[in-house]
Amino acid sequence: MLNTLKDIKITGIRRFYDEMVKYKNVISLTLGEPDFPMPEGIKTAVIKAVMEDKTKYTSNAGLYELREEIVKYLTRFNLHYSKDEVMITVGGSEAIFASLKALVNIGDKVLIPSPGYPAYEGIVKILGAKPIYYTFNADLTINRDSILSGLNEGCKILIMSFPSNPLGNVLSKEDKEFVYESIKERDVFIISDEIYAALCYDDDYNSLMQYEDIREKSVYIGGFSKIFSMTGMRVGYICTCEKIYKEIIKVHQYMVTCASSISQYAALAGLKYCLCDADDMKNNFKKRRDYIYERLINMGLYVSLPKGAFYIFPSIEKFGISSEDFCYRFLKQKRVGVIPGNAFPDSGEGHIRISYANSIENLKIAMDKLESFIKSL
Amino acid sequence: MLNTLKDIKITGIRRFYDEMVKYKNVISLTLGEPDFPMPEGIKTAVIKAVMEDKTKYTSNAGLYELREEIVKYLTRFNLHYSKDEVMITVGGSEAIFASLKALVNIGDKVLIPSPGYPAYEGIVKILGAKPIYYTFNADLTINRDSILSGLNEGCKILIMSFPSNPLGNVLSKEDKEFVYESIKERDVFIISDEIYAALCYDDDYNSLMQYEDIREKSVYIGGFSKIFSMTGMRVGYICTCEKIYKEIIKVHQYMVTCASSISQYAALAGLKYCLCDADDMKNNFKKRRDYIYERLINMGLYVSLPKGAFYIFPSIEKFGISSEDFCYRFLKQKRVGVIPGNAFPDSGEGHIRISYANSIENLKIAMDKLESFIKSL
Repeated sequence: MLNTLKDIKITGIRRFYDEMVKYKNVISLTLGEPDFPMPEGIKTAVIKAVMEDKTKYTSNAGLYELREEIVKYLTRFNLHYSKDEVMITVGGSEAIFASLKALVNIGDKVLIPSPGYPAYEGIVKILGAKPIYYTFNADLTINRDSILSGLNEGCKILIMSFPSNPLGNVLSKEDKEFVYESIKERDVFIISDEIYAALCYDDDYNSLMQYEDIREKSVYIGGFSKIFSMTGMRVGYICTCEKIYKEIIKVHQYMVTCASSISQYAALAGLKYCLCDADDMKNNFKKRRDYIYERLINMGLYVSLPKGAFYIFPSIEKFGISSEDFCYRFLKQKRVGVIPGNAFPDSGEGHIRISYANSIENLKIAMDKLESFIKSL
Repeated sequence: MLNTLKDIKITGIRRFYDEMVKYKNVISLTLGEPDFPMPEGIKTAVIKAVMEDKTKYTSNAGLYELREEIVKYLTRFNLHYSKDEVMITVGGSEAIFASLKALVNIGDKVLIPSPGYPAYEGIVKILGAKPIYYTFNADLTINRDSILSGLNEGCKILIMSFPSNPLGNVLSKEDKEFVYESIKERDVFIISDEIYAALCYDDDYNSLMQYEDIREKSVYIGGFSKIFSMTGMRVGYICTCEKIYKEIIKVHQYMVTCASSISQYAALAGLKYCLCDADDMKNNFKKRRDYIYERLINMGLYVSLPKGAFYIFPSIEKFGISSEDFCYRFLKQKRVGVIPGNAFPDSGEGHIRISYANSIENLKIAMDKLESFIKSL
């Protein structure tokens, strides 16, 4: 069996989840998926696609109309691709896996965010490559020394991930310029995972992919799970230059053939008819963020205001217990689930990740319970 | 970029397809998907799942009820698994890729069928392993020397694939016993890709997976694309022992998270309510097979009667031209598409693959044209 799998353990998120399901009546603030239903306009389109027998293979690259619609959509973010540069994938997961598989050789060093989405580390290790970590300052900006040190160590790939899971931070204009200047002359590929792009609460959107002169070494990753609350439909996408595209699609075609045809029609209807639903969800998330941020501040917790996604990552360091201790005890005593920070991985220690993808009523109960829990510590 | 991708070329099937779409009014006998619509009972279930908002992530392993139903279904083939041994995947493709990724180390030798489904070779090469080939006799039984020679060369994995693409052959009882005796004492994993299991035209079904004493080193792969004519829904499955399961699911979770939730409900409805539709399709395919076999024999072509899947693989050797020459000229002159045998790969040279997943009317026209084409050679 594959040697590199030995190192891959069950993630801290899954471990906590397995514990959580043992309890009844838990308010779970652990989820990486919006709690809204998929928009009606998308449901109608899926039903139509099924009735019209659009249930056969699509091309490996995905539906032409969907790729065209994605190109249009991305111009909102000042991102300009052609439809031949777009590949439809089985969610963001497959996009990340296929991109890394196509770009990484055994032993390569890959520079990934920490705290960050645990899959980056997992995939890099599975592929026999070596994760190197860059970190963040207390105000959630990039720790620039850690980026430079990773690049100087010879990292071949840099993974950018904004808005971020678990930090909820976005890329600032200054950090964008800094990273651009740091990589533009170097022999390094950039993978920019912007799956939460639609959930950015500020007006200006920064992405390294806005620099067109680094297109030959960069891969943009987007998806529909978060924007349209359709995690189970499994549809995402990659945008990249022809040279990289030709390599990634070799992996993609053998990995999955294509994304589900009716899920592709779902995404197409989403972009054509449901962007207002997405905006409604975003406004809703923003209210929840403001509520939960205020509650945490009022409890005296140290926390930075997240500007994207639906996570908040307060420090619990001052209680002098580990994040696992904190979360498992909070679950047991108060029946509320939040994820230990060390799941993202170790550098998240001293924090907890709260997902506010839950109703304001449940958030209120959960915050009341958190307040009473930390008083008891 | 990944070194092992350099060797991966566009497949012969895709190359021919790209040529074919340049012509109008072509009868295509090139497809690897049934031409029937997805059964009504499945459509109804998908629509219900969408209306009931079953559009969120499922567990990585897939829906519990679907895994249970698969366990029941497989007993028809004298295959006995528990639901915890079943993992739902994004079609057979992901099942094959994830299994190979979990089992194969760089440099390992993998014994694969030739002629065979081109993805085996592609994936093995992408993973930095080495494909070794076993072959078939003129009567489509396994060439036993080639199996033994591969095993003696130290192959770590053996891929079985019955009913087969492109040969349409099934595993005979004698070949099953032979392979079992050859591998049972050896340190070799077996991956048995039985995606066409539902399209087996004889009564007895043979699979190496029926031997329970080799469970600790074997992976069964099945899927719903062919049985329910739902290739675009992308749902398949893996059955394997706990030890291997734990490794494959590490890869699967990072590759795709889970299969599309509503596609899983589609498959569930298929197994519960639509097995009679599957039988109707099989009877239909059998009539087409009989028709096309008789036509080819009457044209004086050498061909063995296929006993499964929906492919037939006649020899065109006697015309003294390559399979590519034959197919590209046939396409150009007669507007009928069939795949050159060298796409499966080289050992298929001297043959053409005809898919009879097309209406009997179209098959008749295509056979008339083939008859007139070979007279002109």
